[in-house]
Order: sequence, then C-alpha cells, then structure tokens
Amino acid sequence: MLIKNARFIVTQNKERQIIENKDILISENKIIEIGNKLSKDDEVINASNKIVIPGLINSHIHSPMILFRGISDEKDLHGWLDEEIAPVESRMNEEKAYYGTLLSILEQISTGTTTFNEMYSFTESIIRAVNKSGIRAFIGKGLRDGNNPEKADDEIKKYERIIQMIKRNKGLIKPVLGLHWTLTCSDELIKKLIEMNRENFLINMHVSETRREFKENLRIFKKRPIERLKELGLLNENFVAIHCIYVSEGEINDLARMNCKVVHNPTTNMKLVDGICPVAKMLTSGVNVSIGSDSPASNDNLNMFEEMKITSLLQRINTKRANAITSQTAFDLSTTNAAKTLDMENEIGSIDIGKKADIVFINKDEITINPILGKNGLLSNLIYSFDGRVSDVMVNGKFLLKDYEFLTLDKNAIIEKIRELNIY
Amino acid sequence: MLIKNARFIVTQNKERQIIENKDILISENKIIEIGNKLSKDDEVINASNKIVIPGLINSHIHSPMILFRGISDEKDLHGWLDEEIAPVESRMNEEKAYYGTLLSILEQISTGTTTFNEMYSFTESIIRAVNKSGIRAFIGKGLRDGNNPEKADDEIKKYERIIQMIKRNKGLIKPVLGLHWTLTCSDELIKKLIEMNRENFLINMHVSETRREFKENLRIFKKRPIERLKELGLLNENFVAIHCIYVSEGEINDLARMNCKVVHNPTTNMKLVDGICPVAKMLTSGVNVSIGSDSPASNDNLNMFEEMKITSLLQRINTKRANAITSQTAFDLSTTNAAKTLDMENEIGSIDIGKKADIVFINKDEITINPILGKNGLLSNLIYSFDGRVSDVMVNGKFLLKDYEFLTLDKNAIIEKIRELNIY
Repeated sequence: MLIKNARFIVTQNKERQIIENKDILISENKIIEIGNKLSKDDEVINASNKIVIPGLINSHIHSPMILFRGISDEKDLHGWLDEEIAPVESRMNEEKAYYGTLLSILEQISTGTTTFNEMYSFTESIIRAVNKSGIRAFIGKGLRDGNNPEKADDEIKKYERIIQMIKRNKGLIKPVLGLHWTLTCSDELIKKLIEMNRENFLINMHVSETRREFKENLRIFKKRPIERLKELGLLNENFVAIHCIYVSEGEINDLARMNCKVVHNPTTNMKLVDGICPVAKMLTSGVNVSIGSDSPASNDNLNMFEEMKITSLLQRINTKRANAITSQTAFDLSTTNAAKTLDMENEIGSIDIGKKADIVFINKDEITINPILGKNGLLSNLIYSFDGRVSDVMVNGKFLLKDYEFLTLDKNAIIEKIRELNIY
Repeated sequence: MLIKNARFIVTQNKERQIIENKDILISENKIIEIGNKLSKDDEVINASNKIVIPGLINSHIHSPMILFRGISDEKDLHGWLDEEIAPVESRMNEEKAYYGTLLSILEQISTGTTTFNEMYSFTESIIRAVNKSGIRAFIGKGLRDGNNPEKADDEIKKYERIIQMIKRNKGLIKPVLGLHWTLTCSDELIKKLIEMNRENFLINMHVSETRREFKENLRIFKKRPIERLKELGLLNENFVAIHCIYVSEGEINDLARMNCKVVHNPTTNMKLVDGICPVAKMLTSGVNVSIGSDSPASNDNLNMFEEMKITSLLQRINTKRANAITSQTAFDLSTTNAAKTLDMENEIGSIDIGKKADIVFINKDEITINPILGKNGLLSNLIYSFDGRVSDVMVNGKFLLKDYEFLTLDKNAIIEKIRELNIY
C-alpha cells in the first residue's frame, strides 16, 4: 500500500522530524520506505489533505468499565470505588465486558489510539473484542490476594491459565502481568509473581495513587510503597508503575536508575482527587513516563489528545513553569515514551522505516487544527486545540477507520446492544 | 416550528428538570410550549434520537485571536503577550479579524455555543462576521490609556463611536463596555467610562489574573486591584470581572454583595500559569460565576464542554474535594449563570416557555455520551465524557447547524481563506 503525498508527516523519528508532501510505502504490516515519488502497483491512498501521525498509545486502561461511565462523579477514589463502582462491578459478566470493550475500542479508534495496555478481568471477552476490532493491545489483569498470603498461590495459578489463553490468540495481543494495588497484594503474592515471570512480561501495578494508600502502607508494611516494592525485587525494566503520585525524590531516582516505567493518568488523578504526579520532575530525572486514560468511569473519556493537553496544563500548575511540558514532550508521552513503556520501541510509536504500520490520519481542514502555522504550530495545535477527531486509522497495515467510518466494528449495533444490557 | 419527541431535554429550568420524550413548540424566535403531543402545521423536527440542551454561553472570548493559535505555548501570560502575541497582533487588520471571527464562530457553533461575549478591536468586522453567521453575541473592546490620564478622553470618544456602530446593527448583537486590564487603565479612564455608562451596559475587565499584576497594583496604586476598583465605583451589577485569581476573602465578599459577575477561564489560567480562581469558594459566597474560553491563542480551543470539565477538575485540585463542583453546577456555569452574567437570564440559558429558542441537539448515539445511565448519568456524561460534537444548533429559532452541516457559513471556504492570509 502507498500513502501518497501526505501534507504533513509528524514522524516522531529520532530527530523528531515533521516532513511535508512525502509518500509512505507499506508492505504487509510494515513501513518500508518514506520519500518522494514512490510507486507501487496496489492500493494508493491520496493523503494530500492529511496530517499523518503515529498511532497513539494508551498506556493504562480498564476498558469494560466504560459501562459505568456516568455512575459517580462526586467521590474521591476510595468512595468512588468502594461505594459506587464495587456494587455494579460485582454484576459485570463476560457479555457486558465484551460489549464494554467494544465501545471503548470504538472511542479509542475514533480518537487515534492504535494500542492500549489493558488491566481487567474477563480476559476471554476482552481478547474476543480486541481481535474483532483489529486494534493492538496488551492484556492482563490485576492479581490480588487481599494481603492474605494464603490466597497467593491460587491467584498465581489463575494467572498462568490467563497467560496461556492470551498466548493462544492469533491477534495483535501480547500478555502482561498485573498486580492490583499496594494494599491488596501480599509480599508473598508479589514475590511469587516475580518468580513466575520467566518470560520477562511487563508487570503493571497501581502504586502510590492516594495519600490514604501511602499512609496505610506505612502503617501496615512500615515502609513507603515504592521502598517496599524495591525490597521485594519488583523494581526493574519490567515494572510499569501506574500513578506514582506520593513519591519522594529518592523513589524517583530509584525508578529512573532501575529503568522502571511510570504511567500518568492526569484526568483520573484530578477527578478522584488523588493528587498530582510529578511528571516534569520524573522526566528530568530520567524516568520513562507515558500517559494512560485509566478507566472511562473515572476520566471519563478515552481521547489521548485531551490527556496530552491536560498533562501539560497540570504540570504547569504543579511547577509554576509554562515550559514544564513542551508540546513535543506531551506528544512523546503518548507515542515514543509509551512504546518504550510497552517494550515496543522498535516496532511502534513513530513513523519510521521498519516500524509497524500503525498510522493515524487527520483531515487538515478540521476546524480545531487550523490555522496551521508551520511545523511548530502544527504540533502545538495537535496538543492544545485539536479535538481528537481523526479521519482514518491504520493498525498493522490495515484500515480500521476510513473517512470517519469504522470498517471492522458496527458502531450503531454496539451502542444499541449496550443500551439493552442491564448495567445496574 | 415543532421539535417532536425529544428523547431527553436538559431544561435548566428552575427545578433543573431533565424531561423525557417531550415536544417543544417554537413560534418565531421563542419557545411557547413544552409538553406531550403538541401539534403545528409548519416544520416538524423529529428529535426522538436527540438530547436537547440550552445553547451554551461563552462568557469571555477574543475571537480573532484564533489566527494566533499555535504561535506560542511555552510562556506565561506576560511572556506570551509581550514577546509572542504583540508582534503578530500589531499586524491584525479588518480582513483578518473578519475571517478569524468566522473561524471562531464555526468552532463555537459546532460545539454547541450559541452566545458569546466578545472583547476585541476591529468591531466592524466582528459585527459583520456575527451577523453573517446568525449567532448571538455581546461585542465590546477593552479600552486602555496605558495608565496615562491624558489619553482617557480620546479612548472614551472612540468608544462612543463603537457603541453607536453596534447599536445600528440589526443582528442578535448587544453592546458591552470594556476596560483592558487593571494596569493599563488610569483612574480617570475608569471613572469616565462609569460616567458615560448611562445605559447600564456591562463593563468587562481583566482583573487579578497574575501575581505580577497584583504586585504592580500594590506598587503603583497602593491598593489591591479589586479594592481600587471598588473605590472608583466600578463594583456593581454591571461589572464583569474576568479571571479574579488573586482575590482575598474580603474581595470575594465585596464581589458577591455588590452583585458583580466573575468569569472563569480555566484552561488559559492553567496554560499561561496564571493560577487558580477560587470558583468553589466564590459560588458558596454567592458570587455569580460563569465560564469563558478566553482567547483561542491561549486555550486553545472554544469547546465549552471541555471548559466545564476542566473547571470541575481544577476546583477538585484546588479544594481537595471531589464534590467542589457537581456536574449540575458545572453545567449551570455555562448556561444559567452565564445568562445572568450577561443580564439575559429571562431570555437565554434554559429551555423554558417564553425563552428565546437557542437550542442545541446532541445525537444520543455519539460514542462519548454512552451509555446513558438515567438522568444523572446523562448530566455527568455531558460534563465529563462528551466530546462536544453536537449535531444541530438553533439560535433565535433558526438552525445554524443541521445534521453536522453549517447552514449559514461555508466552512471550507473560510479555512481556505485563512490559509491564504499572511498571519505573520
């Protein structure tokens, strides 16, 4: 396939080049050439009216929870989870999880996300939804034994079955491991999961999200959350620490030195009054930070353009510096940095020769991308003004969205089906 | 005209009712009946697939500055304005202002705004653009004498001509007065404008936006900004104070007691590192607060749904309370409160009998409004998940947007023309 004459290509290559009026040649699922006047026999896509960017990466999501969007918006994390979400979540089932995941994928595709990192139960249904859509995903669930070591073995066994299930699938899915939260996982569970992780899967975990969690860690384990995880041997390049709000300078340095990855979820952190992750400080300390939407019941949308904007705005508030997060850095957080978070930096996150063809197209006549004042202006508009409505989305060389229409999913049927499901 | 069988009507009436499957009868430019099985001979709009809300109100904007979107995103207010905006703004002209305003109006219509409160120069071109579009607007400019009282008379005379120009227009436009900023207006200019304001027009002014402004007020005038304006006699129901970030409890009480209006611009305040307006505190103190987009060169978009969301998120950060701004309050800030800001509370801001027909329609199958979990869920989704893409917009009984298509403006021609203008 040949993408012909793209008006702008925001490559996110090493030099962060934005190139103009160039072609992209795709063979099978890979980008094999970028240049002028390339030619090919088969399908040619005229992109003279398009801005082309790498597919965005959502580094943390609980997709099926989109079914709970609108249920609760006046509680902090603990009230939200215990009082409002837990009762409805107890009635989640495979069918609901399947359609919820489909709705989340619809939203992610329509706003330019091509890869997401999932943490939820009902793995079989999530795999089914991801495969149907053609999107790329990392799938795992958050193990928990309620800090009761006697239950640790059962949890680990469950996970072995889940990993096998994910490995058997033939789609664009990779397995990840997950630990639910610092307070719900015993030392034994954490140690056993590390031991089980012979294949060096990523291990995701919610860490230091709220002040209450932080204090409870001190009370129960007599340690700061990250200090404890370090002692247990969790801190290495496989570790994906979600949130990381209550972290000391020493902990930030540990996360950097041990090549851990941090995922920032700014909207959820604001909405649930968690606090502010020191993203700017982490980046200057050498931590690889990327952005996640978190659950669509706490955000409440999955638009990574909005997440990049809010990340930049929130760091300005936190540092009192207008250049805390530049537009280039903000864009990196959901492309190159996120690819690194997922150990996929050689395959996704930029438009470059040899990379997978995960490519997003934006109509340059969209109101919120105009006027386009050169390359810097374009990047600024992508972060601060664009509403996220992309025209076309390609994953692994195949179009999932073309001219604003979904090719693999039936949007109206999914919304109709969700209307029929009994959420409560 | 009859709007038939609207699935949900978020009325914003006194009881804040959300009603289901009802009709709205419109005669000329007004809502004359809301109920079941109404009938009329002329045009019938099937709204069984729509969520109907009052047109949103943008309480503060500098529309033509959309031309500078993307120019600067790493400076605080003073650096942004003096170093980056002023040079390009010096080359603004009537033609640029006209097309810039048209682009801003396109964006506002497409995201459900039906009224805006404008503060900029090039009044003639702005009037022309507003009239062409059919949107409702308050238009004024910010007078400034550079704190040089000798120039005050000239400024006032200029304004008298502008007011006459606005009054001669036959569109949905009302004149407002404006003072640029506390540091650029002499006591004499402020007093003369108050004196000239025999018709009780609103007087808009940027007040207490940055710490530097606050300190300079103390140095130059030996008073806090609002303290000074109070002594000059500006604080009354005509006064619209834009920003109000560095305000004491006493000043908040003065603003409340004297029925002043405050306009909050959260995204600009975050992006330009201004600080955080104590909106939640103001509301409990009885101040009428509404929301503005501010300039699309500092925000950088005009989507009031995003502004309502960010207002709520930012107040959570500021108060550490998840219920600082409920979804109902957030929605009020850009409907009923904003109508009050503009002294239009008997005409716009709600869907009620006798009100002007400024009505916005949302397709209930938009991904980001689903699932709709009852009335509370609907309101929550409007604030926290909906991306703002409305399907139809009616102002004063006439459709400006129908089925996502602009009826009064040629979108592609406007974007093409802006591409040809030399912004630099």
